[in-house]
Amino acid sequence: MFRLRTNAGVSPRFFESSSGSGAVFYIDPMIETVAIVGTGLIGASFGLALKAAGFDGRILGVSSPPALKDALERGAIDEALPLVQAVTRADLIYLSQTIGRILETLRVIGPCLRPEALVTDAGSTKSRIVEQARRSIRGARFLGGHPMTGKEKRGAAEADAALFANRTWILTPASPADLDTPPARELLFWIRKTGAIPLAMTPEEHDRVVALTSHLPQLLSTALAATLATRLSAPEHLKAAGPGLADMTRLALSSYDLWGDILETNRAAVDSALAAAIEELQRLRAGLTSDEMRLAFETAAAFASRLRK
Amino acid sequence: MFRLRTNAGVSPRFFESSSGSGAVFYIDPMIETVAIVGTGLIGASFGLALKAAGFDGRILGVSSPPALKDALERGAIDEALPLVQAVTRADLIYLSQTIGRILETLRVIGPCLRPEALVTDAGSTKSRIVEQARRSIRGARFLGGHPMTGKEKRGAAEADAALFANRTWILTPASPADLDTPPARELLFWIRKTGAIPLAMTPEEHDRVVALTSHLPQLLSTALAATLATRLSAPEHLKAAGPGLADMTRLALSSYDLWGDILETNRAAVDSALAAAIEELQRLRAGLTSDEMRLAFETAAAFASRLRK
Repeated sequence: MFRLRTNAGVSPRFFESSSGSGAVFYIDPMIETVAIVGTGLIGASFGLALKAAGFDGRILGVSSPPALKDALERGAIDEALPLVQAVTRADLIYLSQTIGRILETLRVIGPCLRPEALVTDAGSTKSRIVEQARRSIRGARFLGGHPMTGKEKRGAAEADAALFANRTWILTPASPADLDTPPARELLFWIRKTGAIPLAMTPEEHDRVVALTSHLPQLLSTALAATLATRLSAPEHLKAAGPGLADMTRLALSSYDLWGDILETNRAAVDSALAAAIEELQRLRAGLTSDEMRLAFETAAAFASRLRK
Repeated sequence: MFRLRTNAGVSPRFFESSSGSGAVFYIDPMIETVAIVGTGLIGASFGLALKAAGFDGRILGVSSPPALKDALERGAIDEALPLVQAVTRADLIYLSQTIGRILETLRVIGPCLRPEALVTDAGSTKSRIVEQARRSIRGARFLGGHPMTGKEKRGAAEADAALFANRTWILTPASPADLDTPPARELLFWIRKTGAIPLAMTPEEHDRVVALTSHLPQLLSTALAATLATRLSAPEHLKAAGPGLADMTRLALSSYDLWGDILETNRAAVDSALAAAIEELQRLRAGLTSDEMRLAFETAAAFASRLRK
């Protein structure tokens, strides 16, 4: 089904079919050099995960000097380079910066990309990024991505080869065919090798879904912590808090430096999610001790159980 | 400072001073028989924790037949008895039922209590319970309590001697002197022995604080899960959820069977907490990408950090 290609000096490897049919085929690796642009927690973890998964090509890093130092020390990248030099050499370009920086990088790297190169990213919203890539990446390919993972602490020092294991890794192809190009199949192979579970959806669907599953929970956690901050003044009041409040304020620890861009690039969907949650809270407040409250608890518990299956 | 009393057959034990001064004194144990009314998760865990802490008196259990069977099997109680017989024999009565049942039990046990007995409870709201105890418990003593602990799963089968370790155990004396009676000091000794950290406040202060630290987080979690339940229909949408949503919907698994009573007995404080959270969310929605949002993130992150210290 797939042509076995061999080049001098490059041994053929096994690749699973990206169709999930379980078929395994030989193919020469096309991705021999990876450029990770933004070697923070996600970027450096991707480097470590690639190496742990058996990737034996070269990993270049592009980032700020302290982030590059940490990534080199952790062994997440082999070499630190300026953006243009890294992109010129890479078969796969992995943009793991903040959304604003990803949009900037997409604007400038077009002319430097190799014709066969694949650009992917880890941005938390996808519509604006995919649209920017459509305008800027010509003569190469772009496949948007969003690994659903993270940690409270940021930076390459926190990088972890297992960060993607058992996590969904969303891909947002502009068209379904974009998943079935040779470099996309090879990227899918490595994504699966990190232990992640790929899931494809359109950029618009991604943004609507994460507004509900990620951005709304963040804002509820932030609103809860901000509400309590002004109302629980005495230190002993905090001692009255059980483990439930710890769960509900963990997201509130997140930095606005990441969230400013997310809210900016997903305004409509976040606004709509917030409106729905406010409406639900107003309904609960109006029927604090009514049967509607019982129904809300039952609906909510069923959803929370379904989420855990 | 304290009289060393000895009775035949009862050896004196060491008790720490409840004042926290570190003083240790000899006293004869007054609490030799404990009745745990409601041998669910909290009640059975208290029995296990008492035994693990060295309590060598008798522990009686009052509950439904299946709950008693589980509690006996776990070794959380020594003997199962009907309410009146247990209460007649007990020096300490521990009411670990739902709030509605605690109010009912308080209404009926008054005439059966021994004059020296101390009644305490584990109800999640305190004003109504303390008020009911004031009316019903005459000739014996009541000291309201609320150990800030729990588990997702209920029942004696889930009981754990370490459930109270490092958790705050709130006590709500009607007056400060209620903490300094001989049986209250002995209860405090055992509370500390379970690893819990006692904290005293008035019933009204307790209810206002837990409306913010416990009831509001619960309703936010329920509202979030209920909002998502109707808007995320496709199973693959749930795969897009990261660990943050799991944190934020853990409380939503709670049963209304427990929460109906809590909301019913703390209406005013819960209404006020919900109003504050809705107002905060409306402010965030109005300024999604403004400097106010940055300020809310910073305030919230500072509070969440403080909570973790």
